[in-house]
Amino acid sequence: MSSRVEKDSIGSKEVPNSVYYGIQTLRAVENFPITGVAVHPELVIALARVKKSAALANMELKRLPHSIGQAIVQASDEVAQGQWADQFIVDSIQGGAGTSINMNMNEVLANRALEIMGHRKGDYFHCSPNNHVNMSQSTNDAIPTALRIAAHVLTDQLLATMREVRQGFERKRTEFDDVIKMGRTHLQDAVPIRMGQEFGAYAKVLDRDIGRIHRAAEGLLSVNMGATAVGTGLNASLEYIELVVKHLATDLDLPIHSAADLVDATQNTDAYTELSAALKVCAVNLSKICNDIRLMASGPHVGLNEISLPARQPGSSIMPGKVNPVMAEVVNQVAFQVMGNDLTICMASEAGQFELNVMGPVIAFNLLQSLQVMQRALDVFNRFALEGMEANRARCQAYVDQSFGIVTALNPHLGYDVAAQLVKEATATGMTIKELILERNLLTRDEMNEILDPVQMTSPGIAGERLLKDQD
Amino acid sequence: MSSRVEKDSIGSKEVPNSVYYGIQTLRAVENFPITGVAVHPELVIALARVKKSAALANMELKRLPHSIGQAIVQASDEVAQGQWADQFIVDSIQGGAGTSINMNMNEVLANRALEIMGHRKGDYFHCSPNNHVNMSQSTNDAIPTALRIAAHVLTDQLLATMREVRQGFERKRTEFDDVIKMGRTHLQDAVPIRMGQEFGAYAKVLDRDIGRIHRAAEGLLSVNMGATAVGTGLNASLEYIELVVKHLATDLDLPIHSAADLVDATQNTDAYTELSAALKVCAVNLSKICNDIRLMASGPHVGLNEISLPARQPGSSIMPGKVNPVMAEVVNQVAFQVMGNDLTICMASEAGQFELNVMGPVIAFNLLQSLQVMQRALDVFNRFALEGMEANRARCQAYVDQSFGIVTALNPHLGYDVAAQLVKEATATGMTIKELILERNLLTRDEMNEILDPVQMTSPGIAGERLLKDQD
Amino acid sequence: MSSRVEKDSIGSKEVPNSVYYGIQTLRAVENFPITGVAVHPELVIALARVKKSAALANMELKRLPHSIGQAIVQASDEVAQGQWADQFIVDSIQGGAGTSINMNMNEVLANRALEIMGHRKGDYFHCSPNNHVNMSQSTNDAIPTALRIAAHVLTDQLLATMREVRQGFERKRTEFDDVIKMGRTHLQDAVPIRMGQEFGAYAKVLDRDIGRIHRAAEGLLSVNMGATAVGTGLNASLEYIELVVKHLATDLDLPIHSAADLVDATQNTDAYTELSAALKVCAVNLSKICNDIRLMASGPHVGLNEISLPARQPGSSIMPGKVNPVMAEVVNQVAFQVMGNDLTICMASEAGQFELNVMGPVIAFNLLQSLQVMQRALDVFNRFALEGMEANRARCQAYVDQSFGIVTALNPHLGYDVAAQLVKEATATGMTIKELILERNLLTRDEMNEILDPVQMTSPGIAGERLLKDQD
Amino acid sequence: MSSRVEKDSIGSKEVPNSVYYGIQTLRAVENFPITGVAVHPELVIALARVKKSAALANMELKRLPHSIGQAIVQASDEVAQGQWADQFIVDSIQGGAGTSINMNMNEVLANRALEIMGHRKGDYFHCSPNNHVNMSQSTNDAIPTALRIAAHVLTDQLLATMREVRQGFERKRTEFDDVIKMGRTHLQDAVPIRMGQEFGAYAKVLDRDIGRIHRAAEGLLSVNMGATAVGTGLNASLEYIELVVKHLATDLDLPIHSAADLVDATQNTDAYTELSAALKVCAVNLSKICNDIRLMASGPHVGLNEISLPARQPGSSIMPGKVNPVMAEVVNQVAFQVMGNDLTICMASEAGQFELNVMGPVIAFNLLQSLQVMQRALDVFNRFALEGMEANRARCQAYVDQSFGIVTALNPHLGYDVAAQLVKEATATGMTIKELILERNLLTRDEMNEILDPVQMTSPGIAGERLLKDQD
Repeated sequence: MSSRVEKDSIGSKEVPNSVYYGIQTLRAVENFPITGVAVHPELVIALARVKKSAALANMELKRLPHSIGQAIVQASDEVAQGQWADQFIVDSIQGGAGTSINMNMNEVLANRALEIMGHRKGDYFHCSPNNHVNMSQSTNDAIPTALRIAAHVLTDQLLATMREVRQGFERKRTEFDDVIKMGRTHLQDAVPIRMGQEFGAYAKVLDRDIGRIHRAAEGLLSVNMGATAVGTGLNASLEYIELVVKHLATDLDLPIHSAADLVDATQNTDAYTELSAALKVCAVNLSKICNDIRLMASGPHVGLNEISLPARQPGSSIMPGKVNPVMAEVVNQVAFQVMGNDLTICMASEAGQFELNVMGPVIAFNLLQSLQVMQRALDVFNRFALEGMEANRARCQAYVDQSFGIVTALNPHLGYDVAAQLVKEATATGMTIKELILERNLLTRDEMNEILDPVQMTSPGIAGERLLKDQD
Repeated sequence: MSSRVEKDSIGSKEVPNSVYYGIQTLRAVENFPITGVAVHPELVIALARVKKSAALANMELKRLPHSIGQAIVQASDEVAQGQWADQFIVDSIQGGAGTSINMNMNEVLANRALEIMGHRKGDYFHCSPNNHVNMSQSTNDAIPTALRIAAHVLTDQLLATMREVRQGFERKRTEFDDVIKMGRTHLQDAVPIRMGQEFGAYAKVLDRDIGRIHRAAEGLLSVNMGATAVGTGLNASLEYIELVVKHLATDLDLPIHSAADLVDATQNTDAYTELSAALKVCAVNLSKICNDIRLMASGPHVGLNEISLPARQPGSSIMPGKVNPVMAEVVNQVAFQVMGNDLTICMASEAGQFELNVMGPVIAFNLLQSLQVMQRALDVFNRFALEGMEANRARCQAYVDQSFGIVTALNPHLGYDVAAQLVKEATATGMTIKELILERNLLTRDEMNEILDPVQMTSPGIAGERLLKDQD
Repeated sequence: MSSRVEKDSIGSKEVPNSVYYGIQTLRAVENFPITGVAVHPELVIALARVKKSAALANMELKRLPHSIGQAIVQASDEVAQGQWADQFIVDSIQGGAGTSINMNMNEVLANRALEIMGHRKGDYFHCSPNNHVNMSQSTNDAIPTALRIAAHVLTDQLLATMREVRQGFERKRTEFDDVIKMGRTHLQDAVPIRMGQEFGAYAKVLDRDIGRIHRAAEGLLSVNMGATAVGTGLNASLEYIELVVKHLATDLDLPIHSAADLVDATQNTDAYTELSAALKVCAVNLSKICNDIRLMASGPHVGLNEISLPARQPGSSIMPGKVNPVMAEVVNQVAFQVMGNDLTICMASEAGQFELNVMGPVIAFNLLQSLQVMQRALDVFNRFALEGMEANRARCQAYVDQSFGIVTALNPHLGYDVAAQLVKEATATGMTIKELILERNLLTRDEMNEILDPVQMTSPGIAGERLLKDQD
Repeated sequence: MSSRVEKDSIGSKEVPNSVYYGIQTLRAVENFPITGVAVHPELVIALARVKKSAALANMELKRLPHSIGQAIVQASDEVAQGQWADQFIVDSIQGGAGTSINMNMNEVLANRALEIMGHRKGDYFHCSPNNHVNMSQSTNDAIPTALRIAAHVLTDQLLATMREVRQGFERKRTEFDDVIKMGRTHLQDAVPIRMGQEFGAYAKVLDRDIGRIHRAAEGLLSVNMGATAVGTGLNASLEYIELVVKHLATDLDLPIHSAADLVDATQNTDAYTELSAALKVCAVNLSKICNDIRLMASGPHVGLNEISLPARQPGSSIMPGKVNPVMAEVVNQVAFQVMGNDLTICMASEAGQFELNVMGPVIAFNLLQSLQVMQRALDVFNRFALEGMEANRARCQAYVDQSFGIVTALNPHLGYDVAAQLVKEATATGMTIKELILERNLLTRDEMNEILDPVQMTSPGIAGERLLKDQD
């Protein structure tokens, strides 16, 4: 295998001629064999777009010769379309605030541009990773900008899926609106509720989550291109700053804009912690919802058995006929993952010092993972669990019939103490509440049926209020 | 000490005649001797306002006799003004989703109302904790509503303090705008920056935090009064729901409104996790800022010594003359507290099941603590550290003179490689960069001084760009 | 109110004559009005013991005059016995690594010693907070040593309670050993298990937790007295170091010993993170157990209803007759609190720098709270929930009779496929598994009863293995 | 591409003939496209060993025909040696408690065994994934056992690396033992310390971490093979349980043993939380150490510059000559990752219910990742940063000469107040402490030099104690 020798300020290294990356990429691979997981493809794509925009801006300002600039633009477009994906080999977790992935990109684009221009790879005189591809940039502006773009792209995908799940919940709200069941508080029998109301509440909280994540993602559109090393914009002209952001916005068709304060935007990482926090709040809600669903689907014989979930795989290699709520379980697991990732992101964010947060790579790794696993888990949950979910109406009705929780509606008519006494006697004798009411002539059958109508109990209002007024 | 005997559905207990709380409060004290910290006073006050509003609504609807209602209203007002604070003795962390503090309030108000009406304490026939004070309510709507109000009140106080701190940073931005210092990335020498820019960045991120917390607090204004047990509004009329919220909004002079979906608002706790997440994001930022300040204030002789903080207390009992950055340290500690509290709140929130989250008390304990300790720590930080902070200008200038980071501005003129070579030789020979430039005739003295002007380096632009154009 | 004027290196302050604390305490109160919660009483007591031991050592070495030393010892004993508790007024969260509580103690002991010796308070020439009470000490050794002692004392109390809970679980293991119920995995019907086995598993995991916490607490016995400012022991003689630790061990009757490396012991906080981690692991287990118990106690009519818990308080102000599992709920909440506290402790621990971790106060606040709330919650859980817990045997038996999970035992005899087929048909027809087996002559009645004996299924072994061998 | 049709209780699917996995693997791939990261190779290898041991035990008990058993054993050995790695395609995060990876393994082994025996893939009559490969097992015992083994193997690798790092610190302790520098507390000048003492403290805390992780890993050796579905051992004979564990221990050459209580061992996950907690405690310590190292290496001109780290890669694409502490930074990032992973593991562990924790996959994903990234990061940190680290002796000495912290040693001789006064005057006049002492005749030059010897100050003892005694 033929090779070339590349040099940097530390020394030199032999690089296989077949590859587009160079010496600094090889150093990074040697230095950081940490997770075994390459930098997220969306981050690679976003970084290519950053490089393209910088090249366009520099060409426009006549700082970058047209021929070199065009080659860089073409190479960037290729990478952004997914080509050369195997050339991005540095690890997700890397020291140096992203210098390694930035140089990996600079080297790949330089060598590909050289190839396009008819030069040999490594012939950096004609197109240099640092001088041409990285022109007017620093790791400290290129990488945060790329991360924001990648996170925004993945957030958009997540939001689309979340909207589908919300619609899924809404559909179930309608479908289950006539399923009367017993509400539970403290896991104890409470008062009647319609199953549709429960799924409506899931839709509502997810709706707020969509709003929160959407708002948090807006912060990502404010980028620090031109900040260069510390945010002061040293070696980056104001014209460049305007142009590079304009090209980026055009290329991505997103309202990307320059941060009002580049020093602030270079050192602070609250755009990431804010988004991660919104994901975490959503994860907490999703886990609660899936816990509810797993409880409702528990059984069939020794659980609540209020709903049935589609069978997605045999549940046990030893217990015949077992089917488990695996799609809900995976959402729970993803929720825990997102919560742990949020902690990592917060700790990394807290570790920023002065003009830069050098922990960016671990922030990127966790933030992009959180976005992706939430999107994917919700997508399969929606298609494989929510869509085919069915209510076990008979079981729900039987619960309403058995439970004493309906006596709450008697309070305004008979008083809390008499109602409590009925519960005690029903428990002791095995008689139903209704039987006891009639036996004692506490209410007429009509009055009783009006007051103890469980459907009526699921909306605001005092059951049989008319009777109370009659009494006045 | 004389006493009375009170009864509930579990049994009876002797209660000292001197106290206003009753049997259920005593049960709670016995059951939950956990933290030793009573329920937060703001939560007690907010709950009193809830009780007052419910009484007013029930009076208006003729469900609560005027004489009893008036007495409850007066008792509630007294509690809201801080009277009877020693009667709220149940622990912050309690089982039962807040039933204990709700009953503590119901009992205190009932007994105080009895007293006002000329009855004996405990004579619940004339005013009952459950039937009259708690009329049309459940723990599950009264407590969440009170928690939202208390959190909103404390958030307002926090935001006022945050605005002062932001102004403090802004003042330092102006005051330190002419202090040139070396920026640092990776804690390594980078390029020049003005200290005012650093404090401007602190002001900016705090400004976003103010926005985040403000937005999160808006969610608190949506309350679930009338939800009763599970959100369905059983035993609460629509008129009541409208009235109780109207009275609450009037009493507090806040745009409080009824949640669009009471089932959702009763079971979901995302209003708390959202606010706590915003606090946590802010805590991360504050910790980073205070880390920076402690680094800048480090020394005096073996640290960076870029700023001086007011001496607030002798720093050591053993080392004479030592002064420590204690006001920044306490903000760091509070930041860690808020981050830990956020985890507790998230876990408690995740534990909600079906129609209710029974972990409300531990959520309230941590959320209200976070709000309070952040407000207090920021207030003293502002007054005792930020206001009197001074820049050590000579030291900052010396850093700029010593550091080689300024060579970055030479890149467009001499190229990255020549600049790097100058750094190497300066390190080896002890000569300054400027001496080397002149010795080698790389630039004229005028050109050099134009390009290497550190002040110019702190704003976007290519130093000596004019020279480049001349070269063209 | 008469007052005295005290001075320190920052300036002077008027101090009421009635109080024992002095100027530095007042500064701390002004600087740190954070939580409103005073330093934990056990930490105050432990610190008093540290002061006593140091005084004894210094007297023995003739560095501290006998009369002053005796007065300090007496004052320390008084504080250790709980006297003067109202004089320790500095906040739990304070900047300065504990200097404030150290000086609060030094001042109280000095003034009380002065009083004992017949001098006026504030007459520090005769007994000085710094020179006499703090002799040979630094905040950086006195406070960590006191924290370790306080944490050890509280850990001992926690372990005693944990052992009682473990015994409680063991008693239930015996009591419920003949209660056959259906095991659940994924909340789905699995195979039979004895309720006693479940409580045995709770006892076992708690037993490991006891071991973990016990081991972690051992690390607390290694103290850094004599480390003085940075661990090098400057101004502390080797004889002193030996003596002060000996007196401390004697006074507390604990195998306290000097850390092998005082520099290490002064800067590292892993003794706290280790203990907190052990508490957190236990909290996770306790939360899982309480979740199980709340599930088993769910109902009575629309839940699992396998056990009944003692009624500790009326469960609802609106739903008559409701009783909630409040004692389990409070353990869940405490578990979340301990997990959040652990995060705070970890973040504070990570913030250590060079020779000291200045975040000690927030570590102490959270660690001592975790120990205390776990002990208290477990104590009431044990007495008010575990002891009176009862199995609902009929319900458990009914579950076994209804569930198809028992078919798993048929696998070795009829094969997984035939067993699965029986489940399908039973579900479709409403017939029981046994009826189907007999109808199809798959087994004789005796064979069937031998194989499908649920009790036998709860121990290792192949039901009816004898029959398999007969087949060979 | 030719294919076969496979069936399970849910339905049937076409499977390419070229692959060894089957229908349930395909279902899992469809259901769980979550992280894109396959199950950790060590878990796959460990699971293969579990299958082999079960096959050997079942053969020995004559439950598994010899020919089938032999083929399974051979197939398992192949997988354990890394063959067929591309056949394990299910995602790391999966619903179903690991059923998917268990079935992926069962199917691959069955098909490979069929191939070995000369049958077609999919011809499960001759060797079935469920009946033969999974014989006497359940996901609920096979997967936890495999996870424990995999975690133990990775822990051993981690511990080996940790021991090397500890030795690295020890070497630096020796190498830097004569480097006097100023200690810092609160980042402020404190008193002299030897740099070797600092590295000794790092070695010590790492030593305790090694002990903690080692102890935690011991818990992994207790496995639940034979527990089958819920820990009761249904369908698993006592002989089998003994044999399978014996074979596993032999195969791995590890003291693996049967858990004392299989119900406990099946439902509880404290072995994982305990190990993860130990990793987290270590991560906190490592982060603190790397923070120190990055501070010491800060500069070169505007930082502390006490040590120099080997240059591993150019530090900046824009700032010539910059070298960053990237190997320390990556350890910080890994520490944050491990702390976040620990939270995920704890939340997943807390979510266990009754006889099983179905969140096992996300626990495995995070635990194995934590072990691996810590091992890898420490390895490169050791080789690329610690080994070549050098002390900047002149700079350290200059700090000692400049700082006033040495006055602390004057306390026993001149008193705290006089010492403090000297600091004030030195600060005001620019004179050194020594000049002032001589000018004022406070000490003779000899006495002064004896007392103010910084080397002496780095060990316990009162400098010039002899002089004090002379004074008596």
